[in-house]
Amino acid sequence: MAEAVIINDVGPRDGLQNQPRILAVAQRLALIRSLRDAGMQHIQVAAFVSPKAVPAMAGAAEIMAGLPADDAAYSVLVPNMKGYELALAAGARQVEMVVYGSDGMAQANVRMNRFEADAVAAAILDRAAADGLAVTITMSVAFECPFEGRVTPDRAMQSAARFLGAGAQEFIVADTIGAATPDRVRALAEALLAEHAAGQLGCHFHDTRALGLANVYAALDAGIRRFDASIGGLGGCPFAPGASGNVATEDVVMLLEQMGHATGINLAALMRASRLAATLTGNAPGGRARAWLDRQYPQPAETPHEI
Amino acid sequence: MAEAVIINDVGPRDGLQNQPRILAVAQRLALIRSLRDAGMQHIQVAAFVSPKAVPAMAGAAEIMAGLPADDAAYSVLVPNMKGYELALAAGARQVEMVVYGSDGMAQANVRMNRFEADAVAAAILDRAAADGLAVTITMSVAFECPFEGRVTPDRAMQSAARFLGAGAQEFIVADTIGAATPDRVRALAEALLAEHAAGQLGCHFHDTRALGLANVYAALDAGIRRFDASIGGLGGCPFAPGASGNVATEDVVMLLEQMGHATGINLAALMRASRLAATLTGNAPGGRARAWLDRQYPQPAETPHEI
Repeated sequence: MAEAVIINDVGPRDGLQNQPRILAVAQRLALIRSLRDAGMQHIQVAAFVSPKAVPAMAGAAEIMAGLPADDAAYSVLVPNMKGYELALAAGARQVEMVVYGSDGMAQANVRMNRFEADAVAAAILDRAAADGLAVTITMSVAFECPFEGRVTPDRAMQSAARFLGAGAQEFIVADTIGAATPDRVRALAEALLAEHAAGQLGCHFHDTRALGLANVYAALDAGIRRFDASIGGLGGCPFAPGASGNVATEDVVMLLEQMGHATGINLAALMRASRLAATLTGNAPGGRARAWLDRQYPQPAETPHEI
Repeated sequence: MAEAVIINDVGPRDGLQNQPRILAVAQRLALIRSLRDAGMQHIQVAAFVSPKAVPAMAGAAEIMAGLPADDAAYSVLVPNMKGYELALAAGARQVEMVVYGSDGMAQANVRMNRFEADAVAAAILDRAAADGLAVTITMSVAFECPFEGRVTPDRAMQSAARFLGAGAQEFIVADTIGAATPDRVRALAEALLAEHAAGQLGCHFHDTRALGLANVYAALDAGIRRFDASIGGLGGCPFAPGASGNVATEDVVMLLEQMGHATGINLAALMRASRLAATLTGNAPGGRARAWLDRQYPQPAETPHEI
């Protein structure tokens, strides 16, 4: 058996954030429970953002209050100190902050340049360390920016050194617009792994050009052992032209399991979560390996959760 | 610029062989011309098989007679000596024969065990050498057999040694049912490259589990520089349960070009060929990166060929 790999399902947050259909808190909790039922130990469950700006993420505190009382790693996105305070008050134990590989993306997302966004993240990281919360730093457009083009690896290298050095638990490089190629993924992963432990690193891929699984493999082969993925491939970014969904969790789990890496995730149960995601969002069932997975794990007669 | 990579489009043969709609010779020639218009230098154009057994491949000699008079490498499949004689008479300069990684697949395909199938290929290879024809040997189910499960790498290693030693121009390993994973692809590619030149080797992937591009990347990274692919992802195998289409040519070209490998292929023109394939077969347009490629290369108002 090859080394275990951690999958962090970002569907309930990153995946749902920009869906045309806004889900109720109870529906989002049902999706989270279905992921837990599949054995998922890492789930991004909420964002403490303005419900006016992002209506799909309203009710973050209710999400936190409704989470299963277990030891899974439930992370929440916080865009600023106000969001952090709310997350802390709601009982969050793991917060995620976004930094930027380009000024263009930082401006589009948070109306700052990337250094200003870094400073916000650094301030929250200090607070979180004092409060005993784990922090994940994700670098958006670590490979390519829709406004500025190719992002050089030094951006991620410098940011990883800064934030891991300051006590962040994890540093994730995100290919926000799905423009990375596996050779560039491998090169950046190898460079990061030369400086930091695998347990501190992760990758986040979008599947815009159908290269999501190739990029996961390239990172995995370089030694990365933690991946974001989104159930059913839910996702996309409204501020990044051309960004489509995240790489689908079921595709990544299938790849890893077939390569002998334990994930702790039950694929049959994961397909139930994927079908629930499709039912809730009204989207066609997602994932690239859908046809094959549906044959392997046919839809049961009953749905797993009352929704 | 990284090393050039050869793409062999198998759509006009492997891709069309099992389509529900049987195309006329003129339609198949139009598809071949559209691939040539995109700069494709290697095309599998016909199979000299019984038209009763494979009606979609009827008219192989007419296909040969109708090919553009240029220096592209047009290959034809020959299942036996009779097929070889017909191919030779029709002016073929490059023939492809299939050998088998398992007895089960050999029995299902040609009602022989794999050693008997080897002997047929060896006899034709001898004849072709005397006649001055180039020979490609493709090992079907080189990674996994739908009847016997996992195929160990020694099958491909032994077969490559035998047939390349006997003068075959190329030895291709085929993941006929799309069950290979990139780690196994890399391992076999590295083993083959330790014994043979890259110019003698190639890979043929099916995209059943959406791992086609990950497998292409794994083989490429190991040093493979020749890939079969099928325009629009056309393909599948009637004798191999669960086999779906080949990896799509446009997906592979996109991956290679974005990684800086020259293919000599014009993606905009290739998308016209892909749309022609969909029009002719009546299939939905294929390929995993379809949505992105369609945005990059929008459909023109006119079709490129009278069909």
